[in-house]
Amino acid sequence: MGLRFRPVENAFYDQFAESAAHLVTGASLLADMFTVGADREAVAMAMRDAEHAADETTHEIVKKVNSTFITPFDREDIYSLAAGLDDVMDMMDEAVDMMLLYEVKELPSGLSEQVDLIRRCAEVTADAMPRLRTMKELSEYWIEINRLENAGDKNHRRILAHLFSGEYKAMEVLKLKDITETLEGAIDAFEKVANTVEQIAVKES
Amino acid sequence: MGLRFRPVENAFYDQFAESAAHLVTGASLLADMFTVGADREAVAMAMRDAEHAADETTHEIVKKVNSTFITPFDREDIYSLAAGLDDVMDMMDEAVDMMLLYEVKELPSGLSEQVDLIRRCAEVTADAMPRLRTMKELSEYWIEINRLENAGDKNHRRILAHLFSGEYKAMEVLKLKDITETLEGAIDAFEKVANTVEQIAVKES
Amino acid sequence: MGLRFRPVENAFYDQFAESAAHLVTGASLLADMFTVGADREAVAMAMRDAEHAADETTHEIVKKVNSTFITPFDREDIYSLAAGLDDVMDMMDEAVDMMLLYEVKELPSGLSEQVDLIRRCAEVTADAMPRLRTMKELSEYWIEINRLENAGDKNHRRILAHLFSGEYKAMEVLKLKDITETLEGAIDAFEKVANTVEQIAVKES
Repeated sequence: MGLRFRPVENAFYDQFAESAAHLVTGASLLADMFTVGADREAVAMAMRDAEHAADETTHEIVKKVNSTFITPFDREDIYSLAAGLDDVMDMMDEAVDMMLLYEVKELPSGLSEQVDLIRRCAEVTADAMPRLRTMKELSEYWIEINRLENAGDKNHRRILAHLFSGEYKAMEVLKLKDITETLEGAIDAFEKVANTVEQIAVKES
Repeated sequence: MGLRFRPVENAFYDQFAESAAHLVTGASLLADMFTVGADREAVAMAMRDAEHAADETTHEIVKKVNSTFITPFDREDIYSLAAGLDDVMDMMDEAVDMMLLYEVKELPSGLSEQVDLIRRCAEVTADAMPRLRTMKELSEYWIEINRLENAGDKNHRRILAHLFSGEYKAMEVLKLKDITETLEGAIDAFEKVANTVEQIAVKES
Repeated sequence: MGLRFRPVENAFYDQFAESAAHLVTGASLLADMFTVGADREAVAMAMRDAEHAADETTHEIVKKVNSTFITPFDREDIYSLAAGLDDVMDMMDEAVDMMLLYEVKELPSGLSEQVDLIRRCAEVTADAMPRLRTMKELSEYWIEINRLENAGDKNHRRILAHLFSGEYKAMEVLKLKDITETLEGAIDAFEKVANTVEQIAVKES
């Protein structure tokens, strides 16, 4: 008789995959929001739904941690990972909300590059979550996220230097600065998730 | 013969209650600072005293952790909780200091709403601290803090959109943005405290 | 027969000392960048090299943690300390990068005072690292860092009040605000390192 899968542990892995899948949806809506001629009201509403769905998944993970005796890795790490994935969604939601509220007219091209990096981070993260099961080939994931975060960081500073160059009016600079900082915050939040995964992998190895 | 209370553990609970009581004082002084016609110098001085008293309580908790063999919950969690409560005080103190230093004239109404939320957070937190003893009915506390934090977040974005609307001069926007971000930082700091309490409760359950 | 030193543990202490030594170099380059008439391109290039060297040390520490069975203190604490020291370097590198990119002309004197505090933090931190071996006289270190951080905090708020006074143009204020916030971020990062050391010392005592 062979070994049976442990259903409780599997539920955790499925939920982390679900949580990361919400980020792929969120990143896609974020990209829509930055598209010229987008129906910003409609995209923001879809984003709100995606954010609520992500919240639900996070709460389910926390509920399961509280009610499960044996967890696949440390309770606090599950908690950190769930919270970290949720933080990314919050940052993306915030960026979409700002785009709607601030009524920004012109978008410097650097911002679209940041949104592209965010989409890539979301895909890489969603790809990595199922590998938590075996703890294999995870280092590729966090190395790639670190690379993307570095690229985002450099791009962010160039965007700021461009915003401060005198080409834009002060109030427009303030709006765009807030939005670009939130995009950078989303990339940083992806990096925190990768750091958490790295710490879990270190403990399990 | 009945069980006796464990005096060392009780001391910790009393100190956390004391720490949260400082936050109620701080939030009340913060509200005074935002009142039209306030003697800002006097309020800022009272705030400085309140902040020092809070610092003292924090140091006493840390000292007790270092010198006590048995603690009511994990040493690191006690440390996190003490540091988290102290961070809230620092943010409130910073907001008061900015109000004094920046010589702000006109205050948008949204800022008073944030101050009201902060007072409510302080009360809810102070109410919850004694319940650490039994670890009962704590979920109501963190759910309420999360609700307040969400409300604060939405309000914060509306304040920024209003500041960027063109009604204010650039330099006035910069001052008010700094102040409103510090108020939001105080609410976030309350949420971190609630998260720490939630994590402690998860471990103890 | 006497006790032998444990070579693996010693390697960790040496690496933390190396990591902190990079911060002394970085702080010195940061000071160069703020000197009137500096060759900013050349200093920024030297900073990039220093940042890469610091990255290397961090990665070596993480690699050693992953491959070592017995560590001198908790794996996660080694990880936190290494990451914390690395964060300081990143903030100093960011400040240098901003000085280059933003093409700031005039520097308010308050910024040089912040750079002086950063240099002092770096020296105090580098002095403390070898004392991790014995865990003795470390409290002087974190008390001094807390004192420096408090001084930096007060100075930071005065700088902002000065920037908002109406003396500078909006775009110049935005540039200088970004730079001074990064300097404050570096000081905060030193404080986080000190907090990590304090937590390690609490556990070991």
